[in-house]
Parts: sequence; structure tokens; C-alpha cells
Amino acid sequence: MYLAKAFAAQRRGEPLTAWQVQRRALRPRDVLIEIDFCGVCHSDLHQARGEWGRQLFPMVPGHEIVGHVQRVGPAVSRRQVGDRVGVGCFVDSCRRCASCLEGLEPYCEQGMTATYNSLERDGLTRSYGGYATAIVVDEAYTVAIPEALPSDAAAPLLCAGITVYSPLRHWRAGPGTRVAVLGLGGLGHVAVKIARALGAEVSVLSHSARKEQDAFRLGAHAFHCATDFATQTHLRGAFDLILHTVSSRVDLDALAGLLRRDGTLVMLGISPEPQGIRAFSLISQRRSLAGSTMGGIAQTQEMLDFCAQHGICCDIERIRMQDINEAFERLQGGDVRYRFVIDMASLRA
Amino acid sequence: MYLAKAFAAQRRGEPLTAWQVQRRALRPRDVLIEIDFCGVCHSDLHQARGEWGRQLFPMVPGHEIVGHVQRVGPAVSRRQVGDRVGVGCFVDSCRRCASCLEGLEPYCEQGMTATYNSLERDGLTRSYGGYATAIVVDEAYTVAIPEALPSDAAAPLLCAGITVYSPLRHWRAGPGTRVAVLGLGGLGHVAVKIARALGAEVSVLSHSARKEQDAFRLGAHAFHCATDFATQTHLRGAFDLILHTVSSRVDLDALAGLLRRDGTLVMLGISPEPQGIRAFSLISQRRSLAGSTMGGIAQTQEMLDFCAQHGICCDIERIRMQDINEAFERLQGGDVRYRFVIDMASLRA
Repeated sequence: MYLAKAFAAQRRGEPLTAWQVQRRALRPRDVLIEIDFCGVCHSDLHQARGEWGRQLFPMVPGHEIVGHVQRVGPAVSRRQVGDRVGVGCFVDSCRRCASCLEGLEPYCEQGMTATYNSLERDGLTRSYGGYATAIVVDEAYTVAIPEALPSDAAAPLLCAGITVYSPLRHWRAGPGTRVAVLGLGGLGHVAVKIARALGAEVSVLSHSARKEQDAFRLGAHAFHCATDFATQTHLRGAFDLILHTVSSRVDLDALAGLLRRDGTLVMLGISPEPQGIRAFSLISQRRSLAGSTMGGIAQTQEMLDFCAQHGICCDIERIRMQDINEAFERLQGGDVRYRFVIDMASLRA
Repeated sequence: MYLAKAFAAQRRGEPLTAWQVQRRALRPRDVLIEIDFCGVCHSDLHQARGEWGRQLFPMVPGHEIVGHVQRVGPAVSRRQVGDRVGVGCFVDSCRRCASCLEGLEPYCEQGMTATYNSLERDGLTRSYGGYATAIVVDEAYTVAIPEALPSDAAAPLLCAGITVYSPLRHWRAGPGTRVAVLGLGGLGHVAVKIARALGAEVSVLSHSARKEQDAFRLGAHAFHCATDFATQTHLRGAFDLILHTVSSRVDLDALAGLLRRDGTLVMLGISPEPQGIRAFSLISQRRSLAGSTMGGIAQTQEMLDFCAQHGICCDIERIRMQDINEAFERLQGGDVRYRFVIDMASLRA
């Protein structure tokens, strides 16, 4: 077993403090990864604060991990010591169900093993995330970081990037499609970059006029600011696909009204409360309200390669591990452009 | 102009009474149809009672019309005097937008002209429906009734039939797909027949155990009765497609939970109130909540031909025009198996 330095929430709602996490002894296909950077996802905050269903404390958050392979198990074939690798939101799955066999591990019928706040396949051992100096993961659940991507700004691609890339591909964003991104935050800002690189016509929908300049800088063709999209009659039927990346309540009827026939409004942010929608908003133009989570390992690798090819990475603000609680506060207030990334050197020092 | 005998609601909420409706003089492409039968759709009741948005009184309901061509305009090319024809939910559309050009007239970007309770393209003339002895319609908005179908039991196919056929085709019901039909009423009973004929594995979901025998008689492979589908854990992930044909409130999260990955829950019944759904119910298995209305003219003809080929028509109860108010009462109470059809001979007598 390996002891890694980490930051953990000891109990629901408590600030994160220094802790030591035990990593398992290497199994034949495991790699030990020395973590260089870990992104700070909004879901880290929700889970550390106990705002979502299942919570296992102490909790080490973090699922946007980039590091170097330090040791490999005897049966590891695809990674070598020194390789730069990434780990995203999950570290295992049943590997036998239809979804796993199709490379859609996040939709595993037995439930995926989340990188933290989850139980391993034995149903007993707990998983701890990337706010730590090291992690042990089966090589099948790691991805290679392409040379062109910097480690720090690539880290959030492992969650934010794949969470928007996957629906953009599934609903076929590309030349001739009109994509709107609701919310210009951690997910939204990379959605704009990727949708643009895929060839789509990209609009940003925002409640905040302050985001306009950034929207264009990130690659948007248009920016629409409104507190109530029901009033934006000139946008009715304007989009084929809307990525809904905000976790606050939004008028879904008004948003759906911005879709053309057969358009899809995809919810990516998990808001625990039920949201209301009128049947007529969907029926009138055969629209769909859908939900999507991150893509599987193969698609995550594809996304990283795509980002490397198109020079895409996240806009980040580097922080020290010790500043995580302040970062959570700022994150909650929307005060980050657009992702905090923890420099794990701060934890080793 | 032609005077036709009809039944109309003179004011919101009033019972239907005998009236005379003026039909326009034949335009070059119009046909005058002597109506033999008209189905009684649930939306007739809602609109006659003023329960939906826009209401134009006096109102002659009825959009499941089967009759014979009695006269034709000079430029009519596809219909002849004596032809048995049908008219469904709409009698015109802009004919120029993308939806019209693709044969999806109900999704006309300018709004279709509904068969009744609507304004014609001039924005002034009102449309009156099929609770009448005759109607004048542009031949392009009529369909041919195949010889194998009886006029009375074919009438409800013009709304109920195409409203379920269209989503079954759009979401590709067929061999290897598992389709559930929620609600065994006017729409549901014909959905079971058509889905079965398309080769799908068909289940009926119902709140009423009384429907079980009928479900199997209509062709269902399985019947599941529950007041709360959240408790039916053995059905989780069981279906690719659910057709939601009931207008009452249903737990959408529980229903969505019955869908497998990438499955779609299609709402066909228009309930005016917003309905709640949790993002997680969709995100967890990339499910969609969609809405669909009836198909276009070309698909309506395809559906009729399909029904003729497979010996499908609606289970009906014939009534006299004079008994429409009692029929509305019974319809509201769910006391019809499965569609009332008005024999227009009763109005001529």
C-alpha cells in the first residue's frame, strides 16, 4: 500500500483539511500515478458539502487528474513509467454489460465506480479522488495526454471537456448545425471551443452581459443575454442543439422554444430538484429534452486527441492545494474564469 | 357556398346543439366531401369546453373525418367524385417552410390550419370541423381510404392512428425494440396494434387492472399494472421507447426510469400544466423526454396503407350525432372502448 498526501472533508460541510490517504497495492493491471494537477469541478463542492445523495466521509474530491506513471503492475501493457496520463470521473465499471462493451462505461448497468465518493467493485473499499499526491488506477481507466496539451490546462478536459464533447458528438454538432451553449462556466467555456472546432455555428446564451467579450474570444459566433428567454422571440426556433450547463433553475419551456423542429435541449448540470416543462413545448416541434453525462474511456481519448489537434484546452486559474476552501467559495459565487486547477507541487512541498 | 348540417358549441362550456355551417364555394383544387363518419377525439371535448388556449365559438369539432367526394373543383387532379377520402387534424399549412416541404405539415413554421377552431391562411375565415354533413377541403390535405378499411373504424386513424404511427416510425419501433404504451385509450389501443404490426415487443403500462385482457387481445406481449411505476424495479431499463398517451399527471421520473440507455419517453397527450422531471432521471442513462404530434399528409397515407395491409383499424362504438353530449360525458369518465365514431346518417335523417 502507498500513503499519499491529500486534502479531505472529514465530515459533511466541513472545510477540506490535510489528510493521508492509503492507496491500494498495485494489482497486475494497475498503475501508480504521481498527480501533477487536479481540476476543481463544481460537483467536488456539492459532494464535499453533502448536497447530493450518497456521501462517504472522509472524502477526497477530485476527478480531473493529470500526472505521471510512477510504477506499473506486472500485467500492464499500455502504460509505461514516465507516461503522462489522465484520470477522469470514473476508475472502474462492470466491464460486461452492453454499455461497458460499447465503451460507454459511465452508463454501466451496474453503476460505474466514481473516482471518489464511491465504492469499488467489491462493494466495500472506498474510492478517493485526485486532491492528493498519488492515485492507483487500472490502466484501462486511464487516458494518454497528448504531447501538445499542457498538463494543467488539460486536467479539466477529463470532466468538463468530455461532458460537453460527448453530447456534441452524440447529437451530431458540426457544419450546418446551430448550437447554443447556456451558461459560460467551466463546462460552457470549453463547449464553445469544441463546438466551434467541430464546425458548428455557436451561440452563447447567458444571464450575464459581462460574459459577452469572453464568449467571442472563446470562439462564439453570437452572444445573447437575457434574464428571460421567453421574451427573445427573434430566437424562436434558432437552434438545433442547446447544451444546458447551468445548475440553477431555468425556464425550460422558454429554452425549448429556441429549438427548431427535432431539436434537442441537453441537460448536463445536475440540479437535484425537479424542473417543470409543458408537454406542448416539446410536442409543438417534436423537440426533445435529454440528459447526458461524460463519455467513455475511448471517447475521452478521442476528445483529448481532438483538443490537441485543434489547440483546445481549458482557461484555468492555478491554485495551491491549501487554498481549496477559498476556491470553493469563489466557485460557488461564479468567480472563476473558468476552472481552478490545483498544482499538486504545493502539497508535496 | 354550401350549407351543411352540423353540431356546434355556441359558447364555451355549452352543450353541442344543431347548427348550420357555411362551407366555402369550391376553389380550383377543393373537393366537397359528404361526411359519412367522424371520430370523437379527446381534444374535441377539451376545445369545446374551452379548456385549451385559443377558442373560437361557435365551434364545430371533429377531425377524424371519412366521407365521399361529392364535387370537385376544376383543377382537382388526384380525387374524383365518389372517392372515399379522409381528412385529419389539419386542412392547410404554409406549403413553403422547411417542414411543409419535407411533408411535416403539422410542424409548419407558420402554424398549420387546424380542421376546426382555427383561422384559414387569410387570417380571417374560420375553420369548422367534421361534426357536420359536409366539408370543403383542398385535395392536397385529403387522403385516400384504402378499400380494405371500413369507413367507421378507419375514421379515428386520421388522428389517433397517425399520432401514434408517426412517433413509432420516427423513433424506429420494429423488430428488436421494446415499446411500452402508457394508457390504453383512444391512442393507446391503436398504438398497441401498430407497434405489434411493426414487429416491436409491446408492453402496456396501465393504472387499471381492468385493461389487462384487452391489452393482450389488442396484441400486447405484456401488461404491467401499477399506480406507481417507481415501485416496479423489475421494469427498470426495460424499454427503448415509451408512448405516453394519457393526459393526467404521471410521475415522469419513474417512467423515465423504465427506459434503457438512449431510450425515449414521448408525450402525445397535451396536459396544459407543467410537469416535473429531475435532470438526473435523464442524465443517468442519456434518456430523452420528447413530444410528438401527428404526421404529415404523406405519412398519414402511408399509415392508412399500412393499417389496410395489416388489418388494423380502431375499436369503436358508433353513436348518433344527437348523442354527442352524453358521449363527451362518457369520454371524460374513460367509459369508451376505444373511440366513439359519429354516424353522420343520423344528422341527415
